[in-house]
Amino acid sequence: MTDAGVDRSEVSHLFVGNFLGSILLGQQLLGPIIANQLGLTNAEAIATEGACSSSAIGVHLGVELVAAGVARKVLVVGVEKMTGLDADRVTGALMSATDLAHEGDVGLTFAAFWALSMRRHMHEFGTRREQISLATVKNRRHGVKNTYSQFRKAITLEEALDSRLISDPLRLYDCCPATDGAAAVLLGPASSVGDRAVDVLASVQVTGRSRITDYDSLTHFPATEEAARRAYAAAGIEASDLDLVELHDCFSMAELVDSEDLGLIPKGQGGIAMDEAWTDFGGRVVVNPSGGLLSKGHPVGATGCGQIFEVVRQLRGEHPNQVEGAQLGMTHNAGGTQALVNIHVLAAR
Amino acid sequence: MTDAGVDRSEVSHLFVGNFLGSILLGQQLLGPIIANQLGLTNAEAIATEGACSSSAIGVHLGVELVAAGVARKVLVVGVEKMTGLDADRVTGALMSATDLAHEGDVGLTFAAFWALSMRRHMHEFGTRREQISLATVKNRRHGVKNTYSQFRKAITLEEALDSRLISDPLRLYDCCPATDGAAAVLLGPASSVGDRAVDVLASVQVTGRSRITDYDSLTHFPATEEAARRAYAAAGIEASDLDLVELHDCFSMAELVDSEDLGLIPKGQGGIAMDEAWTDFGGRVVVNPSGGLLSKGHPVGATGCGQIFEVVRQLRGEHPNQVEGAQLGMTHNAGGTQALVNIHVLAAR
Repeated sequence: MTDAGVDRSEVSHLFVGNFLGSILLGQQLLGPIIANQLGLTNAEAIATEGACSSSAIGVHLGVELVAAGVARKVLVVGVEKMTGLDADRVTGALMSATDLAHEGDVGLTFAAFWALSMRRHMHEFGTRREQISLATVKNRRHGVKNTYSQFRKAITLEEALDSRLISDPLRLYDCCPATDGAAAVLLGPASSVGDRAVDVLASVQVTGRSRITDYDSLTHFPATEEAARRAYAAAGIEASDLDLVELHDCFSMAELVDSEDLGLIPKGQGGIAMDEAWTDFGGRVVVNPSGGLLSKGHPVGATGCGQIFEVVRQLRGEHPNQVEGAQLGMTHNAGGTQALVNIHVLAAR
Repeated sequence: MTDAGVDRSEVSHLFVGNFLGSILLGQQLLGPIIANQLGLTNAEAIATEGACSSSAIGVHLGVELVAAGVARKVLVVGVEKMTGLDADRVTGALMSATDLAHEGDVGLTFAAFWALSMRRHMHEFGTRREQISLATVKNRRHGVKNTYSQFRKAITLEEALDSRLISDPLRLYDCCPATDGAAAVLLGPASSVGDRAVDVLASVQVTGRSRITDYDSLTHFPATEEAARRAYAAAGIEASDLDLVELHDCFSMAELVDSEDLGLIPKGQGGIAMDEAWTDFGGRVVVNPSGGLLSKGHPVGATGCGQIFEVVRQLRGEHPNQVEGAQLGMTHNAGGTQALVNIHVLAAR
């Protein structure tokens, strides 16, 4: 609110994105609790949940309400507390983002899901295991400069390949870490949010499949593809116009598949894109200059707002790992088995 | 969807209200899961949480999005599963609607909250214990005719007064029961939802206090009063115009205080209103002709939609406990310590 020059009395809606507070801490009702703590008692307070996309949903609803003239100013808060707890409990709680009766209860963790995708991508496209882990190496290098990263230490490809096996062929450094975190976004009409604001060119939410057995392919997720198609149309841009993208790299493999589904690189070429640094500084588009979830960590409910925070810093030219002259950025946030996908296209003013 | 004559392809937004699925069943992501089960894969799927008001929030957002022309058709589903589980676990899970760090963890259950309100109302206004339990007697009598009630058996005042002590002076029959349940509401522009639809004259959400120690009074809850004021203004009506109200009688005491805060009866006169049946058939306005939560049960996430379902049946003239000639009805749904309140004013077409 300070950064946007907005007083708490102007906030008409508060959205809170949180995923694990219920299961891990036994605390719900975070909308009104946070509204009270912030003195936003004149705001409608609403908690939204969509697993890893919980706070991006709030941003999306906020954009729709502001654009329609229903809301004056909208504050969206994402927050998660995952550390200091038994790791098995946290892993178990994350399973609440699967369809338990059909998949989660038979043991399909998200690491297993992305390991299956990895294996299949290697089979279909000849992608090599080393190419996939290059996504981690790139993002960890980016994360070194980001003071908000959980990991601020680069790793080598050898370290990634030698790390502990989690779900064959996926290894420890292919996975983002559990993290505590919070992020907030303030939305308002273009004329009223000060000269440090950025423009929202598109805000799109698409529903995918909540069971992986309902997918035709594990190397192509239609919700991301459809969300990107709609976002580019709404923004009047093409993928190649983007200067940077913060996408949902919960696992290294996700970065390759998502980069393809978003149209940043052709389908199946995630491996060569990593080899040739198409998605790094000096390439076609910089993917996850913040370090991504692989460096920053993935405080589930906070991630959607956190991605937007990183893109806003880039468009303001204030990012510690700045993409020079960045004018157009995008966030891609996916919940569960890409059961829902949120995309935001943002532009410097 | 069948009742409204709406095909699933027309639904642009699905809101799901659920409160305890996370803590009791370990299942979240209900937006996309239910969207997939219903074949609503073209709809944005969003779960909202606001404790006992979880699905009323979805109705409120849906009304705003339809009114603004953002949404075509909105399906709001409320659902809860509370039975067949250890009662202590359910009671513990309900505490997630308190501010745990400040109140819940020191033992302030909702029964205790309403017992404090009860004691204070008796002290301030001379209300008698018998008068308060008359709310249960009235609502249980109404619930007999409602095939969707959990309890379809009337009770006498003596049975209420002799029931087991829960939190002095509040007894068993002053409390609504834990329940499984689901309800759904279909929203759309007035011109497109068929001749069985009712009009939404007002949809209001107000934030209250998430800790009872922040209230100046335990016999007057400002969020309900403010929501009612705004709802009547938006609808262009006065409280006395209402034919019926489904209000949040989670405890018998809540019915008295809420009836006062909604302006259905003067402040402090809840006791005499019960004695003289001002809020029963033949009185000023019929409160909870469905039987209310005290008869129907309180499947937390479903209650907001369930109240609207009951009012819609009244306005269609199809309710099993019909208020004759009902033209104007209202729902009042409150989450936590009235930390948020949703009101809807509905009118026959």
